[in-house]
Parts: sequence; C-alpha cells; structure tokens
Amino acid sequence: MALVPLIEYEAADKAVRAVYDDIRATRKTDYINNFWKALAHDPPLLARTWANVKATMGPGVLDPLVKELVYIAVSVTNNCEYCIHSHTAAARAKGMTPAMFDELIAVVALANATNRLANGYRIDVDERFASPLAP
Amino acid sequence: MALVPLIEYEAADKAVRAVYDDIRATRKTDYINNFWKALAHDPPLLARTWANVKATMGPGVLDPLVKELVYIAVSVTNNCEYCIHSHTAAARAKGMTPAMFDELIAVVALANATNRLANGYRIDVDERFASPLAP
Amino acid sequence: MALVPLIEYEAADKAVRAVYDDIRATRKTDYINNFWKALAHDPPLLARTWANVKATMGPGVLDPLVKELVYIAVSVTNNCEYCIHSHTAAARAKGMTPAMFDELIAVVALANATNRLANGYRIDVDERFASPLAP
Amino acid sequence: MALVPLIEYEAADKAVRAVYDDIRATRKTDYINNFWKALAHDPPLLARTWANVKATMGPGVLDPLVKELVYIAVSVTNNCEYCIHSHTAAARAKGMTPAMFDELIAVVALANATNRLANGYRIDVDERFASPLAP
Amino acid sequence: MALVPLIEYEAADKAVRAVYDDIRATRKTDYINNFWKALAHDPPLLARTWANVKATMGPGVLDPLVKELVYIAVSVTNNCEYCIHSHTAAARAKGMTPAMFDELIAVVALANATNRLANGYRIDVDERFASPLAP
Amino acid sequence: MALVPLIEYEAADKAVRAVYDDIRATRKTDYINNFWKALAHDPPLLARTWANVKATMGPGVLDPLVKELVYIAVSVTNNCEYCIHSHTAAARAKGMTPAMFDELIAVVALANATNRLANGYRIDVDERFASPLAP
Repeated sequence: MALVPLIEYEAADKAVRAVYDDIRATRKTDYINNFWKALAHDPPLLARTWANVKATMGPGVLDPLVKELVYIAVSVTNNCEYCIHSHTAAARAKGMTPAMFDELIAVVALANATNRLANGYRIDVDERFASPLAP
Repeated sequence: MALVPLIEYEAADKAVRAVYDDIRATRKTDYINNFWKALAHDPPLLARTWANVKATMGPGVLDPLVKELVYIAVSVTNNCEYCIHSHTAAARAKGMTPAMFDELIAVVALANATNRLANGYRIDVDERFASPLAP
Repeated sequence: MALVPLIEYEAADKAVRAVYDDIRATRKTDYINNFWKALAHDPPLLARTWANVKATMGPGVLDPLVKELVYIAVSVTNNCEYCIHSHTAAARAKGMTPAMFDELIAVVALANATNRLANGYRIDVDERFASPLAP
Repeated sequence: MALVPLIEYEAADKAVRAVYDDIRATRKTDYINNFWKALAHDPPLLARTWANVKATMGPGVLDPLVKELVYIAVSVTNNCEYCIHSHTAAARAKGMTPAMFDELIAVVALANATNRLANGYRIDVDERFASPLAP
Repeated sequence: MALVPLIEYEAADKAVRAVYDDIRATRKTDYINNFWKALAHDPPLLARTWANVKATMGPGVLDPLVKELVYIAVSVTNNCEYCIHSHTAAARAKGMTPAMFDELIAVVALANATNRLANGYRIDVDERFASPLAP
Repeated sequence: MALVPLIEYEAADKAVRAVYDDIRATRKTDYINNFWKALAHDPPLLARTWANVKATMGPGVLDPLVKELVYIAVSVTNNCEYCIHSHTAAARAKGMTPAMFDELIAVVALANATNRLANGYRIDVDERFASPLAP
C-alpha cells in the first residue's frame, strides 16, 4: 500500500526527466526502479537524494560491490524490505555470488548478536581502541 | 559500569585459557580484548561465541577486511560503542585507511536515510527484484 | 496474519464499549480503527492504552497536528506499517498536506542519517549543549 | 572517544571555511558545533551533509521548530546522544519551551510503545487507511 | 548530562509525593530511583507513567521476575543504559542469579541474530504458524 | 518473496539431514519449519545456527518457556514478522496462554516507552545500580 504514486518517464516533468536520464547514464541501464519513481512526486527530494546516492556510491576508495554489501547490511539490520531487495539486485549485478550473500548475512547476524553481548554486559572499551584511526 | 568482571589469562580456568590460546593463534596477536575477558566469566558462552566468530569471520569468499567493514556498519546502525571501537581497530589492522572509514560511514548514513524513505512511503518492491539470487 | 481477533462494538462487553464510546466522543467520529478492536480482546490493556493516548495526544502546548507528525516520525524510524498508515490518516484529518508529509519524511530520513554520522564518529557533545533546557 | 579530530576554522582549508561561513550566515550565529568540525576532516562529506541539512531544514511548509521536534523524536528513538543534545539546543533557540519538550518526549515514548503493540499483535491495516494521501 | 533536574521528596509537591509514596508502598522500599525523580519535574507524566508501570508490572499471569527479564531483553536490544542497570537491579532483587542473567543475555543475542537471518533471507511464515493463539 | 529456496528433507544432503534429524529428536516433532529449510541452502550456516540455538535454548537455569517469551520480546522490538510467529507458536507449545502473551506484549510496549523516556531525558544511572550483579 504505497503512499505515493509512481511517476513514469512519460508523465515526468523536465526536472524529473533530468534525474532519470542521469540515473540511466550513470548506471548504464534503462531501468528506473520504484524507489526513484516514488520520490519523483517530490522533484527536489528526488534530485537531492539522487545527488547524494551518486556521490556516496560512486567511485572512491571502496569497491562499488563492497558499498552494496554495506548497504544490504544496514537494510537487513533495519529490516527495510524494499532496500534489501533492491540492493541485493544491485550487488548481484556488480558480481555478488549467492555464496557471498550468505557470508554477508552471517556476518550481519553475528554483529547484531555481539552488539547485544557488548551492550548487555556494558563492556568497557579497551584503552588501546580509543584512537584506532590515529596514523 | 561493566556488569561483569574481566577475566585475565592468569586467573582463567583451563577451558577459558584454551579459547584465549586459540584467539591468539588465530589472530596472531597476544592481545585479548575486553569483549572476550568479559564473556570469560561464562565459559560456555565464551566458547560458543568464539567458535561462531571464528567460523563467520574466518576465510571464505568475502575478504576479511570487507567483513570488518560490514561489522562496523551494523554496529554504527545499532550504536554499539564497544563494537564500533573494536571493529574499527580490527579493520585498521587489516588495511582500512581513514579514507575508507569515511566512505563506509557515508554509506551507512545514506542507507539509514533511504531505508526510511522506502519504509516511510511504503514503496512496493519492483517485480524484477523479487528473486535477485536466482541463477 | 493478525494474532488476535478484532472485537466489534456489537460483540464487545461493557468495559470495551465504554472505551469505544469515549474514542468516538473524543475523536468526533464513529470509526473505531483496527488497533483498538485488536486491543479490545484484553480490556484492561485497551483501557490503559486509550487513557495514555488520550492524555498524551490531547490538548497541551504542542499542536495536535505536530504530535501526529512526531508519531509518524517515530513509526517510520521503527518501520511500524500499521502506525505509519493510521497516523498518516490521522495527520491528514488534522490538516497535513502531501507537501507537509514530504517534508516530514525528508527530515526523518536526514535525522536517521546524521544520527549515524554522530554515532559512527563518536562525536563528543559540545559543552554548551550540556544543559539546553536550563532557563 | 571521538574517532576523528575537530577542525577549527583557523586550521581549515578553503572548502571547509566556505561551509563554515555558510553555516554561520544561515544560522545567524558564529558558533560552529562539533558535528560540523568532525565532518570537516572529510570536506566532500561535510559539504554534502551541510547542503542536505540546509535544504531539508530550511524554509518550507513545516515550521522550523516542528522540524527540530521531529529531529529530536528520531534521535531519541535511535538513542543518538549527540543529536538529542544538539537538536534540543536548536529547538530551544527556535522557541521550544521545557513544557513542549516534555510533551514531545511523552509522544515519542507512547509511539514507541504502540508501535510494538501493533507489530506484536500483527494488526492488519484498515482498508480506509490504504491511501491516506489521496486528494 | 541529564536534561532535567532530579526532584527529591523534600522538594516535591503534593502530587509528586503521592506517587513517591505509592512507589515506596508498592515496592516495599524507601528508595526512589533517578528515573522517577527525573519524571517528577512533569507531575502528570510521572503519574501516568507510574500508573502504567504499576499495572503492567504488577500481579498477573506472568511471574514478576519473568517480566523483569523481558524488560532487560528489550532494554539490551534498544541499548538503553539506564534501563539495563535499573532493571538488572530489580531482577536481582526478585531473585535473578548471575547465571540467569547470562542465559538471558545469550537468548537476547541469539534472537537479535536470528531476527536478521529471517529478515535478511525474507523467509515466509509457515502456514501453521499463522494463528498460533487460536484455542 | 524469499531470497532462497526451502530445502525439503528428501532433497537434502547428508549434512543437512543430520541437522534435521537432530532438530526432530530435540524438539520431539517431525515438523521442520521454514527457517531451517531456508538456512539449509548453506549447510555450515545451518549447522552453526542450530548448534547455537540448541545450546542457548536448551536446558539451563531459565525455564524453556521463559526463554521463548524473551525471544518474542526481542522479535517484537525488532519487528521480525517471521520470528514473532514462529516463537509465539513455540511458546504456545510450551504452555504460554493467550493471557500470558498479552502480558508479555504489554511489558514489551512499556519497556520500549520507558527506554525512550530514560534516553530522551538522558537520566543518569543511580550509583547503587552500578554493580547489580555483585554478590
């Protein structure tokens, strides 16, 4: 029971079409998925969200597939059905095998468990972990 | 305010020492972090948790560093302070650069946002995403 | 697959009818939604929950519509499908326009993202924010 | 135990200073809070996040204070200590009284409770709530 | 950095004292914990919350200790530090042994893991589980 | 829209059949529910998860029914539809009455509310709760 209509390319105004065109060019596919068609009823939200996704998921120091795995991990933890399906499809397209998906889900389950062990016992952070990003 | 004491190697019984020894051998480090020292007050829980961590985080089809990134992603989403620190340290030891950490956090933040866009608008899953793992 | 039956007014006992009557009088509508019909199988839980909702959502210093927006924000964050639908309907009845819903969802998504940026980087609270409610 | 250093204006490069200047001009205050100083170690993330915050929290159909209340509601639900403090301060600056804060927290608590009543009993969404945004 | 002051009995008005007296009589202890002292700055919220706690946690078909264990389970899952500490103390007072706490935490961790396995793989509910509460 | 196929006993390999046999023997029922049939596509994950469930949910100091109630509490808090249904069925088989389920859900809802009151007001933990597990 979606709360907003899906806007198809043909029915879209210029601003929305520009985003759709950029999604297609960036992803090298004609397919626009429902997430974008739903956001399209609010063109500025669509443009802002796409700009953020494009910048965050685009070329960087992490492999594109790794970013999709991280996306799935968050979506499974939050139980976002739509995002689990769409990013699993995206990860598949970027080379994720079923065996990789299984390992991913196993790590996600484990982390959700140990998060509660650490929080439940209120375990103090080790001194040496205080500044793990220090050079 | 930890709810359980930390068990040092010297004070540990045989079963706990066996786990500590295996952690050291597996991780090629002498350091046992507080998480394990806290679980050690309940030796079967310690043994079971370590066996699970060892199997899940051990060699497989995903790179060990990728698994640590996924672990951090879940821990940040759930706000487990201990796990964020310990797995950030683990990821650093496996080659995560500060720039990679930044990209990771950015993806986690984005996924947490779009999870709510998809759930808030109750967007229907695209037909074509129904079976993304089909061969 | 609801776990409990819905109790209609006609089948309800006196205690449940009293709550239904008060819901109708308070909300100025004949419609009793499924949430209350489901709780009605446990009359004390129904009475307690309604008393709490009536007191919390009733007249106060916040506008009734603002309270509905806050309710939706929590429900989207937790992904409660029922509550998203019922409180979106309630907000609509109190004057929420589709444009207001869009802004609300955008703020909810943004907050869920920045919550993870702050938690992920473990950013320390500014001294000056320590006592924001001080007079 | 923050994972990244705070970047002060004096130590900031040109791109970061531009964002700081815009934050100051937009918010009509000299104060830059730790959240931005922490993001500043990654200038593109800082710029992207600020652009998103500025657009989402800026003038629209919802009152700026209402948006802050929604932000607090999400942050309390997720337990983001930093965000609770910073947005409570922001809401105070925009006119939130302690009494309004109390009502807000009460609604957040109530919504978190009824979310679990609805999810726990698996209550079906009422037919009439299916399209609450229809005109 | 609490956002509200703690109201001691001596400084409390009549309505707050009545709640404090009832907490003391019901719990057979003189000690009023910080949670109630904090809510006391908003007497109606205090009264409503206490009435709800008293009714929900009072005599019923579940053992009082079992209810405390459930309370801890939720608090660990949500990572509410205050509630973990206060309800662990309450459970201790009602007979929870350290070994029982360990088993509880282990079940909480396991459930958080399998919740993600079920959600991650989108496993369909078995037909026979559809109406588990049917007589 | 499950992401993995269900493996029936007849189609299962030896390792999977061994787990199914142990589930049947341990639970004294022929029925293998979808959760296990879904995990069975990844035999090591199945074996590891079952070993963990068997050890954690097996005989100990907490009553088996109490453990199921705790499992439901976590699953409702996280909104895992599958787990709510399967563990409600398991709890029913172990003696949970509908009245017990109602009390359980009421405690879960209450805890989710008071978790946010404590976190929202940032209430400091009472000194005396610091070491509730001390002998």
